[in-house]
This record gives sequence, structure tokens and C-alpha cells, in this order.
Amino acid sequence: MEFEVELIQGERKETKNVSGSLPLLKVIQESGLELDSYCGGKGTCGKCKALIKPAPSPKARERNLLENSELEEGIRLACLHTVEEDLTVEIEKGGEISILAGEEEVSCEIDNGWNRYIYDFEEPSLEDQRSYLRRIFDRGDMEETSLSAIKQLEKRREENEIVAVGKDEYLARIGSQEEILRAAGAAVDIGTTTVVVYLLDLESGRELAVDSFYNPQKELGADVISRIQAARDQKDGWRKLQRMLVEKLNSSLAGLAEKMDLETDDIYRMVFAGNTIMLHSFLGLNSEDIANSPFIPTICDQQKFSPSDPGLDINPQGEIEILPSISGYVGGDIVADMLAVDLADTENYNLLVDIGTNGEVALGKSDKIYACSVAAGPSFEGGNISEGMAAMPGAADSFEVRKDGFDYTTIDAQKPVGICGSGLLDLTAGLLKAGVVTASGSFQDKEKLPDFWRRRYERKNDIARLKLFTEDESGRERPLFFTQKDVRQMQLAKGAIRAGIEILMDRAEIGTQQIDEVYLVGGFANYLDKRHACEVGMIPEKLEDRIYQAGNGAGAGARMMLLNENLADKAADYKEKTEYLELSTSTEFQQEFTDRMSFPKLENKKIETGTG
Amino acid sequence: MEFEVELIQGERKETKNVSGSLPLLKVIQESGLELDSYCGGKGTCGKCKALIKPAPSPKARERNLLENSELEEGIRLACLHTVEEDLTVEIEKGGEISILAGEEEVSCEIDNGWNRYIYDFEEPSLEDQRSYLRRIFDRGDMEETSLSAIKQLEKRREENEIVAVGKDEYLARIGSQEEILRAAGAAVDIGTTTVVVYLLDLESGRELAVDSFYNPQKELGADVISRIQAARDQKDGWRKLQRMLVEKLNSSLAGLAEKMDLETDDIYRMVFAGNTIMLHSFLGLNSEDIANSPFIPTICDQQKFSPSDPGLDINPQGEIEILPSISGYVGGDIVADMLAVDLADTENYNLLVDIGTNGEVALGKSDKIYACSVAAGPSFEGGNISEGMAAMPGAADSFEVRKDGFDYTTIDAQKPVGICGSGLLDLTAGLLKAGVVTASGSFQDKEKLPDFWRRRYERKNDIARLKLFTEDESGRERPLFFTQKDVRQMQLAKGAIRAGIEILMDRAEIGTQQIDEVYLVGGFANYLDKRHACEVGMIPEKLEDRIYQAGNGAGAGARMMLLNENLADKAADYKEKTEYLELSTSTEFQQEFTDRMSFPKLENKKIETGTG
Ligand code: FES
Ligand code: FES
Repeated sequence: MEFEVELIQGERKETKNVSGSLPLLKVIQESGLELDSYCGGKGTCGKCKALIKPAPSPKARERNLLENSELEEGIRLACLHTVEEDLTVEIEKGGEISILAGEEEVSCEIDNGWNRYIYDFEEPSLEDQRSYLRRIFDRGDMEETSLSAIKQLEKRREENEIVAVGKDEYLARIGSQEEILRAAGAAVDIGTTTVVVYLLDLESGRELAVDSFYNPQKELGADVISRIQAARDQKDGWRKLQRMLVEKLNSSLAGLAEKMDLETDDIYRMVFAGNTIMLHSFLGLNSEDIANSPFIPTICDQQKFSPSDPGLDINPQGEIEILPSISGYVGGDIVADMLAVDLADTENYNLLVDIGTNGEVALGKSDKIYACSVAAGPSFEGGNISEGMAAMPGAADSFEVRKDGFDYTTIDAQKPVGICGSGLLDLTAGLLKAGVVTASGSFQDKEKLPDFWRRRYERKNDIARLKLFTEDESGRERPLFFTQKDVRQMQLAKGAIRAGIEILMDRAEIGTQQIDEVYLVGGFANYLDKRHACEVGMIPEKLEDRIYQAGNGAGAGARMMLLNENLADKAADYKEKTEYLELSTSTEFQQEFTDRMSFPKLENKKIETGTG
Repeated sequence: MEFEVELIQGERKETKNVSGSLPLLKVIQESGLELDSYCGGKGTCGKCKALIKPAPSPKARERNLLENSELEEGIRLACLHTVEEDLTVEIEKGGEISILAGEEEVSCEIDNGWNRYIYDFEEPSLEDQRSYLRRIFDRGDMEETSLSAIKQLEKRREENEIVAVGKDEYLARIGSQEEILRAAGAAVDIGTTTVVVYLLDLESGRELAVDSFYNPQKELGADVISRIQAARDQKDGWRKLQRMLVEKLNSSLAGLAEKMDLETDDIYRMVFAGNTIMLHSFLGLNSEDIANSPFIPTICDQQKFSPSDPGLDINPQGEIEILPSISGYVGGDIVADMLAVDLADTENYNLLVDIGTNGEVALGKSDKIYACSVAAGPSFEGGNISEGMAAMPGAADSFEVRKDGFDYTTIDAQKPVGICGSGLLDLTAGLLKAGVVTASGSFQDKEKLPDFWRRRYERKNDIARLKLFTEDESGRERPLFFTQKDVRQMQLAKGAIRAGIEILMDRAEIGTQQIDEVYLVGGFANYLDKRHACEVGMIPEKLEDRIYQAGNGAGAGARMMLLNENLADKAADYKEKTEYLELSTSTEFQQEFTDRMSFPKLENKKIETGTG
């Protein structure tokens, strides 16, 4: 009998007429599509996955090797099934996966060099006296190794089937099929406040599990400067700072591995993103010279280390990589952002803005990148704001301000206990449009305020403020206010970022028309209202419809580099073509900053169309 | 004024007319000769050595940086002297050195990738915010490193001159000029009985110091088989076997370093030669499968390890390499021999014979090598011989046998206490020529013996023997005999080796005329009389005048590979083109061996020309 098998891989489609009950893996391979089969079609490696329609009933081995969700989808191992009817067979496009950065989905090639191989040993004899190791090397996949792998091999020399894990030509580990289930890797985004650890399968690229925790270095200070001081002032302080982080990382990795029924020895590769000071403190390096002029880091380049270097308990034959930093204040997190948003993919420019206590701004095109760092202050994280708070339950995270009132939402719909960054931005933009706050940033004179807001207005200690929530409305059993000082803080924050953008555009000698895309990244970038970001003047208004929110860019960039080691070269290339502008002593920046503190004159332009 | 400077480097000669008092280093460099100058001519690195005639009086710095013997020879630092008169200047041919293997002197290129660099730091500033590490990498010599080197750099960031040690593009260490005096390496020949450690300067190739000691594994047995049994029979036995050796190696290295005013951290590279089982036991590997048919080693290829892998206390960023083995019984020591004698440098064949308990024989030409191992027994080391002993003080190490008597020498001219290998060979050959021993290996009938020997002849327990030394002559207060059994042992030993040679020649389908050179290697090869080796039939007689004695070939080969890492490829190539003949089950070998037990009929041929 003849059956028709339609094969689909990415854009490729082939139709084959198969006579007799041929193994599906064979059909696929003969048609030249790429499908891995490390065990050579024995149904033991679990690599030859295909989506088969109609799906044959799964075999016992498939129940072991495939996840339930895969089985339900119709995924089977192609080597275990023969063609007994007309089929449509889809196989994944080898080595590509999508990674989510905020609202952006980026595709990432899988090319990190790590692989598992299943080998069967040929029987040694007087005619074949090759060493045990040679029997592995002769398979052609690897040709170097360490003593530990040789010792693992020695223990298994009586067995006729082993699993080898290799990185390119380097044999890293040998074990049994029961021991070695996956080759996993972890990408880490070390934030000053929060650390996120992503566990991924290095071969399939699939995300296995995620963990996040507060950076334990917080114990020595919330901001980097106080941590540097604390480390400097105690014996072995840098090492202590490092140990705090690394110990927590080790327990997080152990937890993630356990969750997936793995050992930490199954983790072979890690990539770290973070700002320059975080990367230094992760490595146990003194970062004092970054804190003080002329702000010199010890290391800025992408580097590969051994896991034992910083003391990470993963497979000792594994590798860890840190992303390169541009300078002391434009770190590896920003380079990870650049990778995630493919910053330099244009002949025009793309703009990248990381909004945080330090605002980092980068403007890049294919052959040139400009970058700078500005001190925006902690307002967007809730710092320095009367009722400011982080984006936690009860934070008022969005406002819709009208002349005659306002609507708002809070996180987890709890009673408001404070205002987080996105709420502050909405509030500032809304009060501007409603004429409550003027372009100079002052509250309007009480008598000129719309009725609703006049009722909410009061002065305390000579500082004007608006009662947003009454004692009853608030979750704190006291009213919550938004003050004149808070507006000033917002002006400082948005002014600094805007000044950074303007300085870079000046340096590149371009206007907004030469900018293709604007990427907002950083913890709160995903949640802010981009229209409001333009209305307060943080981002040039003409760019509003070119804004993309790629919040967790650093985590996405780190995951991408975890899966594709070639991105290290791309990152190095980004670093290479970046011109860093040191603004801390720039009078030009000071001038621009002062100019950009005030708000655009929105009232006349837009208020008529508002709903207030 | 104009002076004439004659420059000589190897074959090259240049004459320069120099006007004014130009620094000599400049004159040399401008004429295109190769002379290192890592410190850029500051007189601090000690690299720009030249033999100057007439020699200017040495400067204070030269007294520090050069050895006394060098100063006396007229060697100076070219950067510290200007041309003030007519000079002849000789500089060493960059990167070549001679190494002695027995009576053979082999030239070895220095190319192991290790170098010291002296850098001065440029002052960091807001205009030059490069990281500290980048300032080093930007010198163009290196571009990768480890965390430990970065931490060393961090400690020195305030200094303006540092010394960096690198392997190719890898920065391994950073320190001050006082800390880092040399980049040293060690080559080790791990013998079953004796271990020799050579400390060399990796940059100049010069030998700094040598140490040798008994292999501490002897405690578990004199021969490899008893050690294997001992290791197998106890918990963690392989590891214990390893630790015995490695601990002793560590203390030897520490001693050698101290002797040269170095630290063990100044040792960056080590190369190990040894037979396959010794290399396994050095690595802590189970060698049981080498001992039993089909004789499978765990590892036979040349491999690079980290010093921490076997637990060597040298610089942790260093590297260790083991020579490849051909098979379980033709080990890395034989491959080292091959390197030392350049076995495959001919279109005809060269023959290599390692005479020991296992006799290894290799026959090689440019594109093919044949090798085998034969069990020669311990006779040449003094084992199994009535009065046999190692080559220690009091051993009778040479005999000149006549019909009417004999002369002899002993080591250190002490009274004889036994006979070592070279003495046994002389004795056997001499007794043969004198007609005391017949071609079949039996003592001549008493009545047919020459007078002198008849007087020395007696039988005890039905075994014929000759009294060599009387109670008075002997250092043992009893007479010393040479027995019929001893002759049999010699026959076994030489017969096995000769059979190996014949088998290989058969396999290669050649006769002695196709053999260019014969290299005898192994502990006692330097001391034996090559004529006698032919007379007893151990080596084909026609080859006598093509025999070279390259005794410590394994040590020489290891030193060469230490200095020139490219020899690893050459060794791999040797291994690749070697066809190993397993003789343990070969009936052809058994036949040949039986045939070769008897002695050539020397009496008729040569006795007339003897002095007896
Ligand atoms: S090829 Fe390995 S499971 Fe199918
Ligand atoms: S060049 Fe360094 S001492 Fe002369």
C-alpha cells in the first residue's frame, strides 16, 4: 500500500508517497529535513519529536520521554512509529525559539554548543584494543576532555550504552540514561533589588522554570553606593558581598533543578546580566573605583569563567559568561537589552531607554551606538515620593484624571496604600492636562483650579498638596496626598531622562524623524502608559507611536545569549561600536537637564479633547 | 664618529655602521634580527640578552637580571648599552635549544605559548575610562582570563608597572616584578622504579634543576602487576596509588622551585611521560583492564588537564599534558623516545629499542611505524639473576673476558657486591667468545674449558656455575657466581627483544639494509656495550655501527614537548601512524622467540681476533 505523508518544517513543505510501513524517522531524514536522533532511532534519546496528525496512540517509552502536554498536542517520537495511513507531520524548525521581552517576542537561534549523545560501546577485543576514551572520541563528536569525565567513563566501561554530554568538541560528562535527562542552563538578571533566574533546556531552548528573589545584598544597603561603602569598610567585604549573592543563587538553582527532577550537575551553562556594579559584586570584585571619578571598572568585557570561579554549584565542567558592560554606569543589563531589542538593526536609529534610578539611554544604528547614563532618582520606584511605593499589592498603578474627578486602579484591587511609578506618571500627566499642574511644575493657584481639585487642595507647612484618597478610601487609615514636592521629583526624573535622549540625538546629529523605534525597558517600563510618558515630556512626543515596551529586556537578552553563544560576539560588537558619553561633568547636559525640567504646554493643545 | 657593529644570529650575519652612541637594542632591532624586549628597553625584563665583544662592564641591573656565568661569558642586556666602539654582537637564535638524550643532542624549538610581559598602566581619566583589564588586553598580547587573574589585577590597579604571565591569548597571572621572576615548567618521566623531574625555564628553554626519586608506589609492589592487585584490593585503591605519587611530586616540585628562588606558582606547564600503566596511576585511573586480555586502557591519547585534576600544586591557571600512549604496553615513554630520536624522519626505517622488563620495539619511517612490546624479564635490571643488582655502587658494570682471565670495573670502584645489566651483557658476550658458553647457551663441558675457566667452574645442586669473585675479592664476604641459570635468563631477555625486532622487520617486509639508525633507550641503554649487544644476538649484528645510545629518551622527549607544545601534534601523528602488533597471543612470535634464544655462533668467527 502507498500512503501520503505531508512533511512540514518551518516554511518547508514536502509530500512523500510511502509504500509499506516505513519508520517515520526514516521518511523524514530521507526527505532532507533536519531532525535530531542521537540514539540512532532506538527510542531512547527523546530527540526525534514530531507533531503527527492523526496522532497514533503513544507508546510506553513516549510516556517516559515526552511531557504530558506534548503527548496531548500530538507530539510523538518519529522513530517509534511507522507509516500506516496518510499523515501530516510537523517538525520544529531546528534550533530556533521565541523569547518574550515585555510585549516584544524575539526569535533566538539555539547554538550554545551543548549536546547530549547516546553511544553504544563496541566490545573490546585483541583486534580492537582502542582505549575506552578513544571509543567515544571515534564517534566524531568530541576530542578533548577532563579527568573527571574520564573517571566517569571508567565507572561505566562495562556498560554498553552511555550518555555523553559535550560542549562543542569538549566531553564534559558521562553517565547513564537515567542520570542524564537534560542539558540545562540558567540565565540570570542580577538587579540591584531583584534577581531573576531562568532555567532553560540548552538543547530545545524551552524554558523549564523561573525563580526570582530579592538581591540578598540589600542587607548591606538598598542602593549600590551604600553597599560599596559597607563592603569597603569591612574585612573581606567584597568577598562577603559576593557570597551573599552566590549562596542565594546556589539555593535558587538547586530549587529550580529539583522542581524539574534534575540535579545541579545537569546545569552546564549560565549567563549573567546586570549593571556593572552588580556584575563586579557577583564576581567578588572591588567596585569602589566605579563609584568615584573617573569611574573605572575592573572589568567591562564579556568574559567566560569556570563555575568554580565565583563558587557556583553547577556542573564543574560547565561555563559561565557575563555580558559585557559599556562603562561603569551602562552595564551588562543594557547590553542585554540591546541584544533583546536588536538595537543596531537599522540604517536609521533605534532608541533604548532604561528607566530606573539610573536612567540609561542608548541610540544605535548598524554601525554606531551612543550611550549615556543619567541620574533619574528613585521616583519611578516610589522613592522620594510622599506616598511612593514599589509595584506591590495596594499600589495605585494607574490614574485617569479629569477636571472633575479621577478614576484609578490598584494592584490586586486592594484599597490604595501608596502610588507606584506608573500611577505617578499617569497622575502627573493627568494633572497637567487638567490644568491642576502648570508647565513650570507648580500647582495652579487654588482659585484657578477646577472645582473638584480645589476641594482636594490644601497647604501644609507651606507646601501645596492634593488629597487623593480620604482616610476611608485609603488602606492606611489616613488620607494619601500628592504634593508639590512630588511633582518636583517627577520633573527631576523625567527631565534627566529626556536630557539624556536629547544629548544623544545632538551627538548623533539627528532629529526624531531619524528614529525608527523606541524601546522602553526596565522594571516599570512594561506598566507605564506611553502616551503619558510623552505628555510629561520624558519621551519626545513625536515618537509616541514608535514606542515598544520591552520591560524585562535584560532577562530576555541573557536568555538569548544563554541559548546562542554567538551573541557574545554580537554583544562585544555592540560594546565596540558604542561611544559612551560621560555626562557627570558635562555642562551641556546640565543645561539640557535644566531646560527639560518643565513640562510641555499641554493645556492649550489637548485639554479640549480630554474627558474631564 | 662611526663604529662598525657586526651582528650575528645563527647563520645570519650583518655589519652595521653606527654613528653616534645609539642604544645597541635599537641597532639590533633595526637590522631586523629577532630579540625580545618585553619591557620596551627599560632594562627591567632581562630579555634582550646579547653576547658583546668586547664586553662593556656590567651595570647594576645586569647583575640582578643575569646569572654570573652569563656575565662572565660577556652576555649583557642590549638595551642598557650604547655603541661607543667597534663591536661584535651575538644573539641567540630565537627559540631553539639543545636537549641531551643519552649521547644524542637534539635541538628543540621553544614554542609553548607561555610568556611574561611587563606593562605600564596609563593613568585612568574621564577621557580614558577603559576598565583595568581592558588596559592590559589593549596591549594586544592577550584577550581572555580567569577570575583569579582579575583579582590579582585589582590588587595592583594603583601601581603603574605590572608583570603579566600569559599562555597564548590567555592571561594567567598578574603580579609585580619582584613576585614574578620566571615562567617555569616541569617535565616528568614517571618510571615504574624511578621518577625524574626536570625544571626548565619556559621562555629560554634553559634547564634550571633536576630531581629524581624512587617511585613511591613501590611500597605497593616493585612491578606494575602487584601494584594493580594492591590497588584493586583496597577501597579507593586507585586514588591511593595516585596520591602516593602526586604527593611526592608536589614535594619534589616545591624543592626544585625553592632551589631556584621560585614559588610553585611560577610553574605553569608540566608534561608527563611514562608507560601506560604509570600514566593511568598518575591520573588515578583503574588500570586493571590493561593488565588483563584484551589489555584495554582507559585513555591512550595525548590529553591536556588542569593541574588541579590530578592535584598538582603548581599555578592553578597552568596546564599539564600527558604524552599519548600507543597501547597498554607501548606507553607515553616510548612516544617520548620517538620524539627525542625523531624516529620517523627517514624514508627508510629507524629502529627504537627500549630495553627493560618490558622491551618495547618500534620500527618507523616517515609515514608508518610498527611497534610491539615483549616480555624481556627483569634480568637487565638485575632481577632473576643469582648475583644480579641495579646499577648501584659496587655493581660490576663491565667485563672484559679473555680465555685466560678477565678484567672488570665496578661502580664507584668498590669491591664487587653483584652484577648489573651492562656487566651481565659483557660477561655473557665474553664467555661466549671465550668458548665458555656455547651457542645453545650451555656451559662448555668442564674438560673442554680453557684452563682459567676450568679452575673457576663447579657444580652445585646439579647446576653449573663459575666463581667470578672469591670471598676475598667480593664485597660480600662470600664468593659471587655466574650460573647456568643466569645464562638462561639472559637468553630469554635478549631473545625476546630480538624476536620483537625480527617480527617488526617481517611485518615491514624489510631487511637490516633498510634500517638507517638504531636507537637504544631505557635506563641501562646508555651503559651497555653495543658490540656485546650484537654479539649476544640481541641486536642484529649488521646494525652494530648504526647504533646510537639515547638512554633517557623519555625524559628528553618530555622536556622537548614541555618547551614546544606543537610536539603534541607530532606525538599524536606518531600514534596515528603506528600499527601496534599484539604479540601475547602470536604463534609467529613464539616461534621467533624460541629460535632467537640461542646465541650466534661467535666462536668460529671472532674468537681468533680476541685478546684472550
Ligand atoms: S531518535 Fe532517539 S528517540 Fe527517536
Ligand atoms: S629590553 Fe627589557 S631588559 Fe632590555
